[in-house]
Amino acid sequence: MATEKSKILVIGVTGYIGNFIVQGSAKTGHQTFALVREATLCDPVKGKTVQNLKDLGVTILQGDVNDHESLVKAIKQVDVVISAIGSMEILDQTKIISAIKEAGNVKRFLPSEFGVDVDRTSAVEPAKSAFEMKIKIRRAVEAAGIPYTYVVNNCFAGYFLPTLVQFEPGLTSPPRDRVTILGDGNAKAVINKEEDIAAYTIKTVDDPRTLNKILYIKPLKNTLSMNEMVTLWENKIGKSLEKTYTSEEQVLKSIQETPAPFNILLSLNHSVFVKGDQTNFTIEPSFGLEASELYPDVKYTSIEEYLSDFV
Amino acid sequence: MATEKSKILVIGVTGYIGNFIVQGSAKTGHQTFALVREATLCDPVKGKTVQNLKDLGVTILQGDVNDHESLVKAIKQVDVVISAIGSMEILDQTKIISAIKEAGNVKRFLPSEFGVDVDRTSAVEPAKSAFEMKIKIRRAVEAAGIPYTYVVNNCFAGYFLPTLVQFEPGLTSPPRDRVTILGDGNAKAVINKEEDIAAYTIKTVDDPRTLNKILYIKPLKNTLSMNEMVTLWENKIGKSLEKTYTSEEQVLKSIQETPAPFNILLSLNHSVFVKGDQTNFTIEPSFGLEASELYPDVKYTSIEEYLSDFV
Repeated sequence: MATEKSKILVIGVTGYIGNFIVQGSAKTGHQTFALVREATLCDPVKGKTVQNLKDLGVTILQGDVNDHESLVKAIKQVDVVISAIGSMEILDQTKIISAIKEAGNVKRFLPSEFGVDVDRTSAVEPAKSAFEMKIKIRRAVEAAGIPYTYVVNNCFAGYFLPTLVQFEPGLTSPPRDRVTILGDGNAKAVINKEEDIAAYTIKTVDDPRTLNKILYIKPLKNTLSMNEMVTLWENKIGKSLEKTYTSEEQVLKSIQETPAPFNILLSLNHSVFVKGDQTNFTIEPSFGLEASELYPDVKYTSIEEYLSDFV
Repeated sequence: MATEKSKILVIGVTGYIGNFIVQGSAKTGHQTFALVREATLCDPVKGKTVQNLKDLGVTILQGDVNDHESLVKAIKQVDVVISAIGSMEILDQTKIISAIKEAGNVKRFLPSEFGVDVDRTSAVEPAKSAFEMKIKIRRAVEAAGIPYTYVVNNCFAGYFLPTLVQFEPGLTSPPRDRVTILGDGNAKAVINKEEDIAAYTIKTVDDPRTLNKILYIKPLKNTLSMNEMVTLWENKIGKSLEKTYTSEEQVLKSIQETPAPFNILLSLNHSVFVKGDQTNFTIEPSFGLEASELYPDVKYTSIEEYLSDFV
């Protein structure tokens, strides 16, 4: 007899990755719920997002992380809570933790992570403090004894690959003449497609192997250095690019000379592309597992395949 | 007899605006102190920044916001505390508030603001939550009965003017062909040069008129709509630009479809350049005063003068 799929509540469905996740949940046959603020329903843009979810069969629960009663009521209806709350609301998740404790029925909680493994970075400010907020939430989840999985999906393809890590808003496809490379370009980073991140995330909620563990989304083909990605792109377009390397000292100087919120991005890039924080440790079974090994049936899109669309 | 100038402690001197402020303090003859972490002194890049401050006569106090004793000790040596702590550490300022209360000698505290008036915006997420952190600190300062001034300096010229609000990292001077305008381009924004912001900030610390008030840096010549700025630039280069207007709905949609930290920037721009949050209220004497009116001796750089450097 097949086990019934968990009922899933997603918080933060109008956010970037939250929207992929709630869709992934609904499309894989989980009974799916979304916590949505009243104001969101009236918003011309977010209202459309919510309507799309309704069309997918998602049950919209009106509520708010700051409204304890609505939160407990929503949580009591599900088995799994996935928080994809925004980067500026990370600490508000203590309210979700309290509500989960009170509700008492949650089998798995995935706090809002969806980035690097915040317990294993050498990030400088302001990324350092941003990561510390997520660390605080991890420790609070553990202290509360709530069953959890932390999803470390590393970089979002949709944001890094269309420009080949060039961060120029005007660019809509990778550069064909010149490319700027942070550090020496040898640090390996991990870049995953959002739909794949959602698929792995939903796969893991009912998996006893990832209970109280970190799920690393780090498939081999998506773990490449910037130099390797540039070579891959050069081979695709049959042309060599002019490369400009930025030294770590230059990167650090520019973080210091740049105001918020731009400096957050720069310090993130420093952590990922200069220090190699996504790949400079070994995933030990004691704390984590790799998603593409656990779920080989998910056919993920590789960086190489992703880049083919821009040739 | 001239009153002696206040002794000033600046926290966050290796940050973007903090560095301008600590320099402004030292250069105007205030006895100036900087709280610096031990690790900062060893950092190759930040170490240089600290050495520059020493050369300017700034007294470096080794300490940390998270080390209560070091903080109280530093605060006891000064009359004024200016926090320019990073955007991701805003809530850590509750520790500064506690230390100021314990020290008991501080005549004025300027918490880390240096942006919009967070009590008067219509920002959407994630800027909304970022602003709420600053609001929390305002309320905590007031509840503690600490004498304060909130410095609302609006936009930094060094970040917005070299690209004429185009946010393209590659751009080092305003565009000469095409320009993208958020909303209808009629909302007035305020853009000030960092050295002027520092000068006004230092002026205000000994000014009884701004005690427990907001200091708005909003000189007439720096209060312009995007359309006005573009016209100003067009007149300078003697050429008309092709304008692309982005509707508010498009801006909101792009905020939703963009991951952190890029969405923070977009939502800030929405607040400033679409909603006009920096200018859509009247500064009432009951809560605030305007800097260029209070300190006409500060010869500020206007947007027009600033843009002249790029012709």
